[in-house]
Amino acid sequence: MPSADIVTAAVLVIGDEILSGRTKDKNSGTIASHLTEIGIRLREVRVVADIETEIVAALAALRARYTYVFTTGGIGPTHDDITADAVAKAFGVSIGVSPDAEAILKAYYDGRGLELTDARRRMARIPAGASLIENRISGAPGFMLGNVIVMAGIPDIMAVMLEAVTPLLATGARMLTATLSVNRPESEIAATLEAHQRRYPDVAMGCYPYLFEGRPASELVLRSTSPNRLDDAAAMLRTEIDRLA
Amino acid sequence: MPSADIVTAAVLVIGDEILSGRTKDKNSGTIASHLTEIGIRLREVRVVADIETEIVAALAALRARYTYVFTTGGIGPTHDDITADAVAKAFGVSIGVSPDAEAILKAYYDGRGLELTDARRRMARIPAGASLIENRISGAPGFMLGNVIVMAGIPDIMAVMLEAVTPLLATGARMLTATLSVNRPESEIAATLEAHQRRYPDVAMGCYPYLFEGRPASELVLRSTSPNRLDDAAAMLRTEIDRLA
Repeated sequence: MPSADIVTAAVLVIGDEILSGRTKDKNSGTIASHLTEIGIRLREVRVVADIETEIVAALAALRARYTYVFTTGGIGPTHDDITADAVAKAFGVSIGVSPDAEAILKAYYDGRGLELTDARRRMARIPAGASLIENRISGAPGFMLGNVIVMAGIPDIMAVMLEAVTPLLATGARMLTATLSVNRPESEIAATLEAHQRRYPDVAMGCYPYLFEGRPASELVLRSTSPNRLDDAAAMLRTEIDRLA
Repeated sequence: MPSADIVTAAVLVIGDEILSGRTKDKNSGTIASHLTEIGIRLREVRVVADIETEIVAALAALRARYTYVFTTGGIGPTHDDITADAVAKAFGVSIGVSPDAEAILKAYYDGRGLELTDARRRMARIPAGASLIENRISGAPGFMLGNVIVMAGIPDIMAVMLEAVTPLLATGARMLTATLSVNRPESEIAATLEAHQRRYPDVAMGCYPYLFEGRPASELVLRSTSPNRLDDAAAMLRTEIDRLA
């Protein structure tokens, strides 16, 4: 796809099981890393319950604001899987069994000697105008409608759908990262880092504390789309930190 | 605290490092499980960047809608830690070094033979009117202002702050859970589950697929605040599932 300068995205995780704490969401972290790698800026994540009005409202807010919205969860065969209907409602389009999706499911179940029951056919319900996203693990496809990409909640299946949809996405300049590990607590380098940030306003700088052999240490993370500016800023910062008493 | 019937909450995770995928958010899962245990319903999670306008907008939306908002991240000593200022702005109150917070930090650093530098004192900046939340790991306190609870981003520190603030929270009826494991794919039990859900509209039912010894299986999760209704619904559902061909 053509490259735009800045391409943005949100993730919308759909599922009561995440909000109850029963299932820990791994998908948004996987999507975050992937989007950073391919040059899409993830700007927001939301998790909402399996309630149609909540999903529709979140979709409306997010798809107006970001280049893409990636949803996970709620596209299975049971009554609590309402994502496809909510997406149709958010776009004001109809929804029904897609012949293409039905053919994919039929081939998948035929190959396993299983019948395409009504419950399984429910997974072929796709909003009008959507393109299917291949699921090479378990057949039932995801889909993309406008700027909304609808994927499964099971992490392995989400991952193959994300891979399948990637060639269709516009991407922008990749955000590059340089990381400096410093054997000092954040508070000892805060002033140096802040002054350095003022000198390089185009290089975003963050400080993340951690414990190293039981003592507080810091990781300094610098981010920029320009490799030269990033190298410069990182090298200068290293020098300044090493100079500290 | 007094018990209300339904107490709701949102989690607001603040941090570029989560959105870039560099750090995987564990805090919202921890908070989700804890709130479920103590009788608070988590209704929404959002992750936003270290940008003041984003944090203020999310706080305004979430605190108007839910009983409590729990934030994590952005309260350290470096320039990229802007959560306390954003909370002050969201409430329209001033922010400055709190004598109580400063005394806590001074005692903490004195005990370690360290100086309370300006960078460390920055962690004593607390919005006017907020109550402090104890941090028994690393001194620097969290705080609660109105219905917003502000906690650290480091998971161990977040956990002790969550524990410390819990006695101050109103809680409601606990949502109880019954789980049935079924050695069948979702699609084979979908119709049974949907009919059962219609018979017990007050018991929320979800179906979550997983692999058992390489074959698709399902977990049925039933949730209700009434132990009797939950036991009834779970026992009847087990009977119906076992009766399937």
